[in-house]
Amino acid sequence: MIRAAVMGATGYGGGDVIRLLVSHPHVQVTMVTTSSQAGQPLGQHQPQLAALDLTLEPANLPELADRADVVFMSLPHGAAMALAPGLLARGVRVIDLGADFRLKDPEEYTAWYHLPHACPELLTRAVYGLPELYRDVLAGCALVANPGCYPTAVLLALAPWKELASTSPVLVDAKSGVSGAGRKADLALAFCEVNENIKPYNLAGVHRHTPEIEQVASSWCGAPVRVSFNPHLVPMNRGILATVYLPLEPGMSAQKAHHRCAQFYAGEPFVQVLPPGDLPQTRHTLGTNRCLLGVAVDHRAGFLVLVSAIDNLGKGAAGQAVQNLNLMFGLPETTGLMGPALVP
Amino acid sequence: MIRAAVMGATGYGGGDVIRLLVSHPHVQVTMVTTSSQAGQPLGQHQPQLAALDLTLEPANLPELADRADVVFMSLPHGAAMALAPGLLARGVRVIDLGADFRLKDPEEYTAWYHLPHACPELLTRAVYGLPELYRDVLAGCALVANPGCYPTAVLLALAPWKELASTSPVLVDAKSGVSGAGRKADLALAFCEVNENIKPYNLAGVHRHTPEIEQVASSWCGAPVRVSFNPHLVPMNRGILATVYLPLEPGMSAQKAHHRCAQFYAGEPFVQVLPPGDLPQTRHTLGTNRCLLGVAVDHRAGFLVLVSAIDNLGKGAAGQAVQNLNLMFGLPETTGLMGPALVP
Amino acid sequence: MIRAAVMGATGYGGGDVIRLLVSHPHVQVTMVTTSSQAGQPLGQHQPQLAALDLTLEPANLPELADRADVVFMSLPHGAAMALAPGLLARGVRVIDLGADFRLKDPEEYTAWYHLPHACPELLTRAVYGLPELYRDVLAGCALVANPGCYPTAVLLALAPWKELASTSPVLVDAKSGVSGAGRKADLALAFCEVNENIKPYNLAGVHRHTPEIEQVASSWCGAPVRVSFNPHLVPMNRGILATVYLPLEPGMSAQKAHHRCAQFYAGEPFVQVLPPGDLPQTRHTLGTNRCLLGVAVDHRAGFLVLVSAIDNLGKGAAGQAVQNLNLMFGLPETTGLMGPALVP
Amino acid sequence: MIRAAVMGATGYGGGDVIRLLVSHPHVQVTMVTTSSQAGQPLGQHQPQLAALDLTLEPANLPELADRADVVFMSLPHGAAMALAPGLLARGVRVIDLGADFRLKDPEEYTAWYHLPHACPELLTRAVYGLPELYRDVLAGCALVANPGCYPTAVLLALAPWKELASTSPVLVDAKSGVSGAGRKADLALAFCEVNENIKPYNLAGVHRHTPEIEQVASSWCGAPVRVSFNPHLVPMNRGILATVYLPLEPGMSAQKAHHRCAQFYAGEPFVQVLPPGDLPQTRHTLGTNRCLLGVAVDHRAGFLVLVSAIDNLGKGAAGQAVQNLNLMFGLPETTGLMGPALVP
Repeated sequence: MIRAAVMGATGYGGGDVIRLLVSHPHVQVTMVTTSSQAGQPLGQHQPQLAALDLTLEPANLPELADRADVVFMSLPHGAAMALAPGLLARGVRVIDLGADFRLKDPEEYTAWYHLPHACPELLTRAVYGLPELYRDVLAGCALVANPGCYPTAVLLALAPWKELASTSPVLVDAKSGVSGAGRKADLALAFCEVNENIKPYNLAGVHRHTPEIEQVASSWCGAPVRVSFNPHLVPMNRGILATVYLPLEPGMSAQKAHHRCAQFYAGEPFVQVLPPGDLPQTRHTLGTNRCLLGVAVDHRAGFLVLVSAIDNLGKGAAGQAVQNLNLMFGLPETTGLMGPALVP
Repeated sequence: MIRAAVMGATGYGGGDVIRLLVSHPHVQVTMVTTSSQAGQPLGQHQPQLAALDLTLEPANLPELADRADVVFMSLPHGAAMALAPGLLARGVRVIDLGADFRLKDPEEYTAWYHLPHACPELLTRAVYGLPELYRDVLAGCALVANPGCYPTAVLLALAPWKELASTSPVLVDAKSGVSGAGRKADLALAFCEVNENIKPYNLAGVHRHTPEIEQVASSWCGAPVRVSFNPHLVPMNRGILATVYLPLEPGMSAQKAHHRCAQFYAGEPFVQVLPPGDLPQTRHTLGTNRCLLGVAVDHRAGFLVLVSAIDNLGKGAAGQAVQNLNLMFGLPETTGLMGPALVP
Repeated sequence: MIRAAVMGATGYGGGDVIRLLVSHPHVQVTMVTTSSQAGQPLGQHQPQLAALDLTLEPANLPELADRADVVFMSLPHGAAMALAPGLLARGVRVIDLGADFRLKDPEEYTAWYHLPHACPELLTRAVYGLPELYRDVLAGCALVANPGCYPTAVLLALAPWKELASTSPVLVDAKSGVSGAGRKADLALAFCEVNENIKPYNLAGVHRHTPEIEQVASSWCGAPVRVSFNPHLVPMNRGILATVYLPLEPGMSAQKAHHRCAQFYAGEPFVQVLPPGDLPQTRHTLGTNRCLLGVAVDHRAGFLVLVSAIDNLGKGAAGQAVQNLNLMFGLPETTGLMGPALVP
Repeated sequence: MIRAAVMGATGYGGGDVIRLLVSHPHVQVTMVTTSSQAGQPLGQHQPQLAALDLTLEPANLPELADRADVVFMSLPHGAAMALAPGLLARGVRVIDLGADFRLKDPEEYTAWYHLPHACPELLTRAVYGLPELYRDVLAGCALVANPGCYPTAVLLALAPWKELASTSPVLVDAKSGVSGAGRKADLALAFCEVNENIKPYNLAGVHRHTPEIEQVASSWCGAPVRVSFNPHLVPMNRGILATVYLPLEPGMSAQKAHHRCAQFYAGEPFVQVLPPGDLPQTRHTLGTNRCLLGVAVDHRAGFLVLVSAIDNLGKGAAGQAVQNLNLMFGLPETTGLMGPALVP
C-alpha cells in the first residue's frame, strides 16, 4: 500500500482527494493535516469522511516524511513551496494541487502571486500534471504541479489545435461552480450573494490562471500563445465549462474538427469527444475525472468553437491528482477513477 | 386609463407584463387570453395575480378590439402575425413580445422560423422596440416588435461601438436563466436536468436571435455586422449576462471605453454604465427594466470586453414592452418601471 | 413627506426596507446608517439602490433625530435598545426589525439573548407589530417591535385557533430560505455549504423565536400556549413555509377549517386563505407583504395541518415594517405594498 | 459474476442502479430495458453511462430470463407485477424499486394505486427490503420489495421506538429533493416552478407512502401504528430529510434518546447515529447508501424529535436495492457501497 498524506484536509480540494483515495485499492490515507484545527477529528469538518476515523494534525515535516510515501498539498499558494523541498529531500513524493510549481519562471510567479519563490531550483524539476500531454514525464516523477481547474479545461480543448492556437489570440469564456473559490467565510461566496446570479470576475487577462494557460500552451505548441481568459461564477457547487473561440480556418467543418479532436484523444480513458451536434454539459462529469469535449463551427462569423466540461474538483483538481499518483507510482492510470458521474 | 389586453397570460412573459401593469398608474388590464385554458381564473395559473380577479378568455379578435386600446402578445411565433393586422385595422395598438415582426425581410423570417410570413406588408411598419436606439420612431407608433431577450442585452452593449462592430466579427458568449425558454412541460427544462449544470446550446450561429442581432446591428451601424452568438443555460430563474468580445483598437483603454459607453448612455434612465473595474451581475437587475453595462480591456491578448446584464423577463421582455407602451402613448418613459431590483 | 432613516442599510433587511420605501408615495429616505462602512456610497453595498445616491453615515443620535420622522432599525440585537430611548424622547418614531422590544419580560429577554435590557420601561410601550392582531394599538403608536419572520408565519396560522392552541402543545415545523440568517461572512452560510442541502438547526425549543411565539400566542389566546418550534434551512434566497400541527377536534373538516380561517381573515389585504385542497408555496409571496394560508385535515392520524407561506424579508420583515409605518402615520395600510410577487 | 438487468434504465432510479453496479465487483449489467426508446444507446439518455456501451432493449421476458440472474425494476406501478411472476418462475430473482410488492394486502394496494393486483399470491412471498429490520429474511430470498424513499427515512428513525410509535400517532414532516418525483416532462417539475420555492404536497395522509409506513411500522411494532405523513418539495436534486415527532416520555433526555438509537444501530454499516446536539444534513449522504440519524428533545413542549437524512436515490432507492442484492446473493452486505458522499 502507498501511504498518502493529505494537507489542507478540511478544504474542498483536500476533502475530494480523500474521497477518491478511500476507493483506491493501493493507497491508504495515513495522515491528514490542517493549519489551524489540529487535534480535531477530520469528521468534524468533513462529516462524509467520519468513517475514516482520522484526526487532523499540524503539518510537521518529519512526521509527514515518516508516515507518507506521497503528500497531496491542497494549500493556499506559498505554503507548498515551503515544505516541498524537505519532503523531496527525504524521498517523499509531492503532488501540489496549488499554484507554487506551475509557472516555470520564478519572476513570473512573483509577478502574479506577489511572493518571491522559495525554491526556484525545483521549478524545472516539477512536472506539469496534465497526463494527456505529459504522461511520459509524469511516470515515476517525484514532484507534480497539478494543473489549475480552468487551465485543465482550456488546455484539453486547445491541445489538438497547435498551429491555430499559436497564430492568433485564443479567446476563452469560462464558467465555474462556486467550489473552485475554496472553502472559506467570505461574504462574496455567501449563498444569497451567489445564488440566482451570474457574476463575471477577473476578466480580460487578470486572472492568475492566464499565465499558466499561456505557458503550457506555448510550450506545447512550440510558439508563443496568447490567451484572453474570462471567467464567470455560476450558482452551482461543481463544474467548469470553458468555451474556447478560435478563428475558423478555411475549409474547416464540424466533422473535420470533431475528427481531429477524436483522433488526438483516441484511447484516452478520461477524455471523451462528443459527436458533432452534441455539446458537453458539466453535470455529466460530476464527481469524476472525466473531460467532455465538443466542437461547433460558426461559418457565418468565422469561428471554431471548442467546449470543454469538467468537474473542477475532479479532473480539475483531486481526480487529476490521483491520476498523477497512479502515473508516479507505476499503477494503471485509471485505478480508482472509473466511477460514473453522479446524475442527477 | 389605457385599456390593455395580455395574450399568453399563463406564460412567464405574459405574467410579467401583468405584474408590471398592476403598478402602472395609467393602464388597466381589461382582458387576458390563453390558447387552451379559457374559462379558468388567471389566478389558477398565476396565483400571484389572483387578486386581479381576471378570467382567462380565448383570443377573440372583436372582443380584443372592443375592450383594449393596446394588446401585448406573448405568444409562440406565428400566432401574433395572425391577429395583428385585424387589431391594427381596428385602431388597436400592438406590442408583440414574440419574433413575428422583428425581422424586416419575410424570407429571412421564413428561413429561420420555417413559416411563411402572414403579413409581410406590416414588417416595414413595425418598429423595433429598443427605445435607447429608436425612441423617436417608437413615440406614437402602432406596432412594436419587442426585441428578444438576448438581442436586447447584446445590442445595448454594442450600440456605442458602431465602427468596431462593423469592421470585424462580433463574438458573443451569452448566459441565460431558465425562464427564457418559456413555461412548458419539457424534460430538458426539468429541475433535475437544469440544476447544478451549465449547458451550451444552439452555439455558433444557429440560434434564432442571431439574425435579429445582425439585422439591427447592421442597420444601426450602417454597414453589415457579423455576429457569432453562443448561448448557455445556467441554473437560475431570471437573468441574462452577455459577454461581448471585440478586437481592441490601438490606444483604447478601460477608461476610454468606459467614457465612450457612459457618454453614449448619458441620461438614459434604464442603462447604467459601471465604472472601470466594476462588472455587472444579473442579480442587480432582478425584476427591473434595467441594463447594467461594464467594460474591460485585455491588453495582453487584444480584446475589448463588454458585459451586459439584464433580467430576461424585465428589460429583455415585459419591462421593455411597458417602456414601449409608455412611448407609444406619450407617457413619461419611466412610468411604472422605476422600482429597484429584488435583492437578494 | 415622512422622512425615514434606515439603520443597518447594508444588510438584507435594511436593503429591503429601502426597496419598499422607494415606491412609497409618502416617504422619503433621508438617511442610511451603518456600523462600519460610513462614508461609502450605499450603492457600493446595495448596487440595486445606487440610483438613490445616498451615502452611508454613522448612527448619530442628533442627526437621526434631526433628519428623520421615523427610524427603521435593522440591527443585531442589543443595538436598537441603545438608541430607541433617545429617539423617542426627541419625538422620533421607531420601528425595530430586531428582537429588542419583542419580549415583554426583561428577564426573559436576558435569558434568551444573554444581555441585560437597556430600557425595560419601554417594553410595555412597544407595540408588537402584527397588524392583523394588533391594528388598533399600532395606529399612531411611537415604538413598534416588528415581529420575527418565523413568528409572523406561525402566529398568522395560529390566530384563528385560540382554544385549540391553548389546550395542547403546538408543533411547528418551519423551513426558511437563507436570507433570514442575515448578510455576513460565515462559512455555515457559504454557497457550497447550503446548496443542495436541507439542514435542521436549533430544533426542539432552543431557537430564540420560541419565546416570542409563545408570548404573543399566549397573550392572544388568553391562556398559556406551548410551542415546539423546529426550523430547517433550505437552499433558496427568500421564503418561509411554516407547517403547523394541532390535534384534530372531533367533527372538524377541511371545509370547516378553511371556513374558520377565511372568516377570521375576511377583508385582510395581506392574508389570503386558499381553498381546501390548495396549499401555499413560498414563491407566490416573493418580494411581497403577503401571507398565504392553507389547511389540511388528517382524519387517519388526527391532525389539523395549517400551512403558512411568507417572504421572510417581506411580510416577515421589511414589508410588515412598512405596513406598520402606514398604521403609525395614519396612512392607508396598503400604501406602497400592493405589488404582485415576482414569479418566477 | 452475477448478471443483472435493469428495467427503466432511462430514469433517475434505474440510472443510479447502473451507476452503483458499475463499481460492484461481482455484478455485470447485461441488459437495460425501456418501455419506449428501445434500440437507442443507453448513453443517449444517460450520457454519464455511455462508456458501458449498452443498447436499450424492450422488456422481453424470455430475453430477461435468459440473460439475467437478477432483474432490477425501476418502473411505474403496475409494470413490475406484470413481469415478476414469469421471471420468478424461470428462476430469476427480482428487486422491485416500485410499489407493486410493498403492501401486503391486495385490497389496500388497489385502494391506493387504483389497480387490481396482478399477482396477489406473490405479496406474501415478497420481502420488504429494509435490511436493518429484515436482514435475515432477505438473505437468499427471490423477490424483494425495495422500500419507498420516504418510508426508508421514516422507518429507520422510528424502528428503535416500538412502544412509543404504537401508543400515539406519529407525526412526520418530510422534505425531499426533486429527483424523487421521477424523470419526466411535467410542468410542475420544471426548473422555474420548483426553484426558489418550498411546496407542500399530498399533506395529511393522502400520500401513497402513508400506508407503506403504517404497514411496516405496525408489523415491526406488533401493534397498529398511525402516521400523519406530510411531504414537502425542496429545490435540490437529491436528498430526503424526515423530521419525526413523538410525544416525549417522562424522564427521556437527549442523551438517553441518543443512547437508545445508537445501541439499536450498533454495528450497522449504513446507519450512523449522530451525537446529541448534532443534527443530520442531507448533503452528507449524497450519492451513498447511508442514513444519518439525529435526536433532539423538546422539554418545554413535550416532544421527542427524530431526524433522518438519506439520499432518496441512494438508501432511498438504488443503494438499498444493491444492499438487498448483496443479501440475496450471500455477498458481504457492503460490497460496492462504501464510497463516501460527494461533498460539496
